[in-house]
Amino acid sequence: MNRNELVTQIKSKRSFLCVGLDTALEKIPKHLLDTEDPIYEFNRQIIDATHEMSVAFKPNIAFYEGLGAKGWMSLEKTINYLNTNYPEVFTIADAKRGDIGNTSLQYARAFLSNLNFDAITVAPYMGEDSISPFLSIPDKWVILLALTSNKGSDDFQMLEVPGGDKLYERVFKTTSQWGNQGNTMFVVGATKAEMIGEIRKIIPEHFLLVPGVGAQGGSLEDVARYGLNKDCGILVNASRSIIYASQDEDFAEKAREEALKLQRQMKYFLENSELINL
Amino acid sequence: MNRNELVTQIKSKRSFLCVGLDTALEKIPKHLLDTEDPIYEFNRQIIDATHEMSVAFKPNIAFYEGLGAKGWMSLEKTINYLNTNYPEVFTIADAKRGDIGNTSLQYARAFLSNLNFDAITVAPYMGEDSISPFLSIPDKWVILLALTSNKGSDDFQMLEVPGGDKLYERVFKTTSQWGNQGNTMFVVGATKAEMIGEIRKIIPEHFLLVPGVGAQGGSLEDVARYGLNKDCGILVNASRSIIYASQDEDFAEKAREEALKLQRQMKYFLENSELINL
Repeated sequence: MNRNELVTQIKSKRSFLCVGLDTALEKIPKHLLDTEDPIYEFNRQIIDATHEMSVAFKPNIAFYEGLGAKGWMSLEKTINYLNTNYPEVFTIADAKRGDIGNTSLQYARAFLSNLNFDAITVAPYMGEDSISPFLSIPDKWVILLALTSNKGSDDFQMLEVPGGDKLYERVFKTTSQWGNQGNTMFVVGATKAEMIGEIRKIIPEHFLLVPGVGAQGGSLEDVARYGLNKDCGILVNASRSIIYASQDEDFAEKAREEALKLQRQMKYFLENSELINL
Repeated sequence: MNRNELVTQIKSKRSFLCVGLDTALEKIPKHLLDTEDPIYEFNRQIIDATHEMSVAFKPNIAFYEGLGAKGWMSLEKTINYLNTNYPEVFTIADAKRGDIGNTSLQYARAFLSNLNFDAITVAPYMGEDSISPFLSIPDKWVILLALTSNKGSDDFQMLEVPGGDKLYERVFKTTSQWGNQGNTMFVVGATKAEMIGEIRKIIPEHFLLVPGVGAQGGSLEDVARYGLNKDCGILVNASRSIIYASQDEDFAEKAREEALKLQRQMKYFLENSELINL
């Protein structure tokens, strides 16, 4: 998917919501455990219930790998379901990969070609040649870890490097040169929303993927205030607060309600920024 | 596997060789493509042919994910074959994972509990809470990316941080405090062998996993000179130079010959350092 298609979808759905599919057997409603593939069945119902107010879905690959080959089959069925039924939706493999070029090429094929995700999250530590294989596939995206929302983000991301930058700022500056605004996004934790204003000075145009709203406590209002640009420029991810809104038979309905709450707020922020008409 | 068991194996096999299972359908001998699971069949024969002179095996997870659920099944069969037939061998999932704690815990379960690997390679960028879930499992290991052997390692790893360290040196100093010598190793590229002497001043006791000998051009002699400590303290990985020594029906025999060449050199270095008796 290219940038124009993504922006068109955002304006049409009046939403910049990404739903995180962190699907775990121990958390999904009990009645689904009797189905042939409970993980897929859960995802399918969540997707059907929330796709109208969501522009992106983001399976967290760890949760599928935790179930071995069976988990991979659930993942394959989920992404195929998305690509077949909702081709307008932006799909993200949240995999945090990154390795030497030869190996990154294998990951790029796995997620962007074979599974046909639109985007994959990647880690920058190994440098340009670990990321370029992902950027070589047309109309696909990398989403680089830059400033994460966890406590450990202080350990290295906040270190000062020559020139007065913090490491995460250097990561923005350096990695934004590897690709362009049409194939590169950045992960920025919502719990660091106040820093998004500074980040926007470095990368005014790029899309940001912002996790941490909801269960992790980040403020959607702050993220919108500091993050929105002329193309919207943000995707805000919520996982647990939506998909586990209920653990009973009404889980899909409750997930839809939670997604709708977020979408209504997003519509308000988009209107306020005059990105969509009232 | 604990550190004593690993050191005992090294002394008994007179080797610190790790064989990398970067197994790709397009590179394995044609006659295997007719078998039910060519990837597993190839791995099984390589393992049988080289286990006597190898203390560790390291499947590169990207190559299995590239084949989807079928690839995961090949991976599961490979690690089960190793654990069943050669329980003395140290097994490494080369996965370069790292995410927020909740997600890292899923990866830890996937590779260290379910698949029962002894170790997993991890990326440090997200900090301590992204790594601690891997360290919480007894007798399992993390192998942290610190100084890699690719060109892009200059992009961030070589940046100076406060105190006069380079970032990779800070990664050694900080991450070595998260665990201990009995559950933490470090990846150091063999093409940077001359830097291992400096690294040994920071972490004299830890094991290093050293890729890049063979196809990538690193010198085994330099790695041994700078890297060996009183417990050996290094695992040297070779992948392509061993497993693709021949692409004909004699592939396993040729792989054994290549492994034997490396093992004989390693025996010489171990004897020279008086780590084993002549």
